[in-house]
Amino acid sequence: MNHEKLNQLLLDKDYVVLKNELKNTQPVDIAQYLNELNSKQTLLVFRLLPKELAADAFSHLSVKKQAELVELVQDTELEAILDDLFFDDKIDLLEEMPANVVKKILKNTSSVERNLINQFLMYPEYSAGSLMTIEFVDLKKEMLVEDALNKIRRIGLDKETIYTCYVMDAERHLEGTITLKDLVLSPVDKKVGDIMQKDPLYVNTHDNQEYVADMFKKYDLLALPVVDNEKRLVGIITIDDIVDVIEEENTEDIYKMAAVQPTDEEYINAGVITLASKRIIWLIVLMISATFTGYIIRYFESTLQSVVALAAFIPMLMDTGGNAGSQACTLVIRSLVLGEISFRDIFKVLWKEIRISLLVGTVLSLLNFVRIYFIEGYPLNITFTVSITLVFAVIIAKMIGGTLPIIAKKLKLDPAIMAGPIITTIVDALTLMIYFFFATRILLVNA
Amino acid sequence: MNHEKLNQLLLDKDYVVLKNELKNTQPVDIAQYLNELNSKQTLLVFRLLPKELAADAFSHLSVKKQAELVELVQDTELEAILDDLFFDDKIDLLEEMPANVVKKILKNTSSVERNLINQFLMYPEYSAGSLMTIEFVDLKKEMLVEDALNKIRRIGLDKETIYTCYVMDAERHLEGTITLKDLVLSPVDKKVGDIMQKDPLYVNTHDNQEYVADMFKKYDLLALPVVDNEKRLVGIITIDDIVDVIEEENTEDIYKMAAVQPTDEEYINAGVITLASKRIIWLIVLMISATFTGYIIRYFESTLQSVVALAAFIPMLMDTGGNAGSQACTLVIRSLVLGEISFRDIFKVLWKEIRISLLVGTVLSLLNFVRIYFIEGYPLNITFTVSITLVFAVIIAKMIGGTLPIIAKKLKLDPAIMAGPIITTIVDALTLMIYFFFATRILLVNA
Repeated sequence: MNHEKLNQLLLDKDYVVLKNELKNTQPVDIAQYLNELNSKQTLLVFRLLPKELAADAFSHLSVKKQAELVELVQDTELEAILDDLFFDDKIDLLEEMPANVVKKILKNTSSVERNLINQFLMYPEYSAGSLMTIEFVDLKKEMLVEDALNKIRRIGLDKETIYTCYVMDAERHLEGTITLKDLVLSPVDKKVGDIMQKDPLYVNTHDNQEYVADMFKKYDLLALPVVDNEKRLVGIITIDDIVDVIEEENTEDIYKMAAVQPTDEEYINAGVITLASKRIIWLIVLMISATFTGYIIRYFESTLQSVVALAAFIPMLMDTGGNAGSQACTLVIRSLVLGEISFRDIFKVLWKEIRISLLVGTVLSLLNFVRIYFIEGYPLNITFTVSITLVFAVIIAKMIGGTLPIIAKKLKLDPAIMAGPIITTIVDALTLMIYFFFATRILLVNA
Repeated sequence: MNHEKLNQLLLDKDYVVLKNELKNTQPVDIAQYLNELNSKQTLLVFRLLPKELAADAFSHLSVKKQAELVELVQDTELEAILDDLFFDDKIDLLEEMPANVVKKILKNTSSVERNLINQFLMYPEYSAGSLMTIEFVDLKKEMLVEDALNKIRRIGLDKETIYTCYVMDAERHLEGTITLKDLVLSPVDKKVGDIMQKDPLYVNTHDNQEYVADMFKKYDLLALPVVDNEKRLVGIITIDDIVDVIEEENTEDIYKMAAVQPTDEEYINAGVITLASKRIIWLIVLMISATFTGYIIRYFESTLQSVVALAAFIPMLMDTGGNAGSQACTLVIRSLVLGEISFRDIFKVLWKEIRISLLVGTVLSLLNFVRIYFIEGYPLNITFTVSITLVFAVIIAKMIGGTLPIIAKKLKLDPAIMAGPIITTIVDALTLMIYFFFATRILLVNA
């Protein structure tokens, strides 16, 4: 979409053409355009939108712009927007608006819906309940296909919320599901109960969103019903929200792998204090653990003093060990997340990493030997100490990197927190110990 | 699903009950069960499956099991499976099977379809063409809603491939889309051309899968049409395949962040040589870069020799700098991937990271000061050298970590490769230079 063109039309006050342009624009793109306008322009352009586009574009606006717009519009306009908004988008809106805006929104909501809203706001964050919407078509077993299709025509909901319909008994217990495809393809005088899928997949309101996303991925679903503890149908979750959950979960994992506590806020919008607070804890923990490597060096201070050249190889050895460990660690964490491996694979992983590290370690060590001995001309005993340390450091790093996330998962910890920084800190200490172990044996015996 | 129960039925040769059990089981779960059986059992259980379940379960089997089964079954059975398989699953199958199996499959395919298969196999990996399927409903503008519904009933495709229908002209140019919902909700005597959505979103066969996934995420799509260079409709991509793409792209990013070259193979199934080869390149590059830190230490060897206590703080300073840098780097990379920031935000990011690092660096430095001076009793000049280095190291680390991925993206490099290991190596060298800069000024002047 061409923002300049729209701006020109806005400047020229050519509202008829502008209105026409907007009508053929995707709601997401309209929202992006509105986000860039000032209050007066926003209100003007928003009022040009056809009713069915307005709510959709509204749901895609930035939180700031939504709050601004709610304050600007008349009560009747707000009511119209709220009417057209999906229930899950309405809940998201209420969760993010400042108090005065929430008040204005609730004032324009019926008391029945207000009760429902209160109930939905109580579902824990990241639960199936917090993801679901109440817009779905419910049918009865005894209905004929014709009645069912008529009911769908009457309710006329949007897109994915209509493609699977839910069959409930009088107490709202979930009995089955039936797709719009099956309804369209079946003879009109068949009973819904005869063609519905019995024992459908479902989740509980309190199930974690990660579990829900895994169900969608495993079974290639478009929608999934959500039931309460009495197995009564209370809502459905649709694939578009799950796509967002998958990205959120990935972001969370990636943050944890970099020793940052996850946050829902976008990096660019988050405050400096917030961002600093999400990073400082792990930095302190890691700084304190890294002092142990300092103690190791102090313990071997006399070794270092007699062969000060040893110090020059410490960073290279520590870095290579750390990198080798975090490679293994990251691969195993990702495999755990994608459900490719579980605790029973721990020895398989260990054996795999031992073989990989022997290969990789030997190659690195040989390259290193050539560089130090032939190119830089260090004495053979120092070259040998560094090279042998490299092999053992890589082996230890990959063994720990491969198994620690699996053990973490078994202990009900998040494997992702074992990645990068943690593994580097552990491997650093071990690498130094290996280094000084060989140094004292190889160098000082001959000295 | 209870595998033991099914195994018991299999042992008892109670095939009637077994068949009934399988009928009510999800295809994915059947595939998981079949993956565990031996050849003879696999064939037996597979033949018990109702026709419509068989192909679906087949498409979820492991590659190994698929090859095994194709070799075991009769030609007529294979033909039946292939008939029921979605076209995109068939292409995936052909890409992964060994040559003799491919031959058997092609023998059981019509020559028209063989031509189409050859065409599809030529689309580049990771392109929209390689993701699309040919199962979609095509309509004409002049059709009445009633005709359209009848055509859908006649073709009767599965699930998401039916919920959006595609309107083409005589030369197969894409003219619009219409959802099943709109067809069901419209009067039967309306013309398709009057209710279809004109100017629909689409992608080209050669567009990258990452771009396609971004379209799905932005516009909350269930399906997206794919056109060739002449804008002729050649296929559609459905959301279930995009969910897999999203996970793949995330895995790729995470691998790159840990300095591992991405691979399509699952960790647990990949060979040791493959895994080693994906890791060794970056380890060599990083090992060689890490030797620069060694040169810095050698350059300042005399400083180190006169105050050997300095060596004990090198690991802590390097680790803290590296961790601070990789935090900033990872957050910025993720923001770039999710489209939250772009090149023009570089100064905003820099300013944000400077403020964060001042806060974080000061806190870390104070903690460090207390520990070294008061608890461990080091002299004031050493304490001061270490503490001031820490502040500057954190600032430099976060400035570089925050901007390097943005610059990489501008240079058309993948920002993800700047993460973790690379930033650590750069920051290590800089931290050491800062350390020795302060050490020579603060310690040696007074010495």
